[in-house]
Amino acid sequence: MTEPTGEFSLIRSFLERWGDLAQGIGDDGAVLTVPEGHKLVVSTDSAVEDVHFSRDHLTPAEIGYRAAAAALSDLAAMAAEPIGLLFAVVLPESCQSDAEALADGVADAARAAHCPIVGGNISRGGELSITTTVLGSAQHPLSRSGARAGDRLFVTGRLGGASEAVMAWKEGREPAAQNRMAFARPTPRIREARWLAEHGATSAIDISDGLAADARHLAEAGKLRITIDGDAVPVADGASLDAALSGGEDYEILFTGPSSAFGEFTKTFNLMLTEIGAAEEGAPELEVRRKGEPIAVPSGYDHLARR
Amino acid sequence: MTEPTGEFSLIRSFLERWGDLAQGIGDDGAVLTVPEGHKLVVSTDSAVEDVHFSRDHLTPAEIGYRAAAAALSDLAAMAAEPIGLLFAVVLPESCQSDAEALADGVADAARAAHCPIVGGNISRGGELSITTTVLGSAQHPLSRSGARAGDRLFVTGRLGGASEAVMAWKEGREPAAQNRMAFARPTPRIREARWLAEHGATSAIDISDGLAADARHLAEAGKLRITIDGDAVPVADGASLDAALSGGEDYEILFTGPSSAFGEFTKTFNLMLTEIGAAEEGAPELEVRRKGEPIAVPSGYDHLARR
Repeated sequence: MTEPTGEFSLIRSFLERWGDLAQGIGDDGAVLTVPEGHKLVVSTDSAVEDVHFSRDHLTPAEIGYRAAAAALSDLAAMAAEPIGLLFAVVLPESCQSDAEALADGVADAARAAHCPIVGGNISRGGELSITTTVLGSAQHPLSRSGARAGDRLFVTGRLGGASEAVMAWKEGREPAAQNRMAFARPTPRIREARWLAEHGATSAIDISDGLAADARHLAEAGKLRITIDGDAVPVADGASLDAALSGGEDYEILFTGPSSAFGEFTKTFNLMLTEIGAAEEGAPELEVRRKGEPIAVPSGYDHLARR
Repeated sequence: MTEPTGEFSLIRSFLERWGDLAQGIGDDGAVLTVPEGHKLVVSTDSAVEDVHFSRDHLTPAEIGYRAAAAALSDLAAMAAEPIGLLFAVVLPESCQSDAEALADGVADAARAAHCPIVGGNISRGGELSITTTVLGSAQHPLSRSGARAGDRLFVTGRLGGASEAVMAWKEGREPAAQNRMAFARPTPRIREARWLAEHGATSAIDISDGLAADARHLAEAGKLRITIDGDAVPVADGASLDAALSGGEDYEILFTGPSSAFGEFTKTFNLMLTEIGAAEEGAPELEVRRKGEPIAVPSGYDHLARR
């Protein structure tokens, strides 16, 4: 650490705020137990100021929450149960007074996922960035590659809201409240994805690059052709189908599985589940149709700010 | 990721360079197995440009190596065997051409520690920073807190070289070659620390904040008084006792244990091991003596650049 005194007092302050949520901090590494017969699942994700978020649009607590939620969403995609989160922050001078609110936001996301905070790092720097590493355990982690020909394609929730918020900011408009929330407070679908895995999901991914791009990832990993019925895609209120297809950072779960397996989902979680397509034998590519005709899908997600 | 095309091609290039060292990359998370009966040990560490290193002093490969080695050293301190490393980099436009050399440096450190690279993240940003997360496993992880009254205090290797290099750069001088190497290419003492744990070490820490500061951490965690005989401290050639006591980032192992337990160490690893003090009943504090008299120790390690 760059400034031991400042670092140690900030760490103390974080630990006080986190309370019982912080576990095993104080040694060179945290010691965790992976349940017997379970695999360890691990992922890391960075959120960089003016690339992934802007301090003009989000509160410090939202920045912290969103960074942690995006990482936790990767555990959801693998149907893993969170067992620990590490929070590494590079903090510019101008953000010192926001550090505790950032830490509160991280804690909100961790607490909602029942995930202890087991370590981290605080560094000075010129640019605010947060790198969150998440650890989970699963007996049978879901992967991107398990789809079988004949599986149906499903998605949780509604898509496009986060992307609409980013578009509004880019155009200098204030986004609609529900789109702003979709961007600022996404919900990692942790319990939902574990339920889906237990009920027969064969492959899954969380939607971070956009529905179309992430469906392509499933097609490539599964070596299957994937088709999406554009008319079936659940578009968020105030968002367009384009935003739903090409916008990213929805953090909903896109997955394959048998047609009839997930009937109890919506009742169990009070969350929409929509069948939007299918996996078929064929070259690993994606086709999106509207009214039965293939349509072109703009590729890739355009982040908040391009430098 | 900010720029999918650029990201994906960089990831592909990294994976090609890493070869078999990269494992389980391509899903939302990596899936690892912790050996039965072992604990999982995890730590994360950030290296930020102009705070922890300067591109004026280190090559890109050295920057990558050093970031990964510093993180791996935390596993050494816990006597854990590395099972995976995640490499999250924020890459400014001006560093794009150095990305592969950075990745090579990370791979060097991982390969030397027999640690697969299991994941990572690449983001654009304004400032180069690397956050390395390391995972290890150990049946009985060493902690900072296990010292017993009557234990002796030991340290591996020689101290102060890295700090002397930093001081030279600060004063606008070129550091001596061996001090520069001590800073640029530290060796995480992974195998050594596991051997020490097996042979009776009771507590350990890696020297990142400086010998005196890290000895204080052992005293506080162990609730014991620790004394150091300054005249016994193994000072690196071309370094001062002050640098050895207060300089940081040596990444040697400071540990406690019975006096007679480690006689085979130097022969086994061709590395110096020096008994430099003791743990005693008493208030958790550190006393350093020279010629029998207590001396004052400057506190804390001054990083490369204060902003």
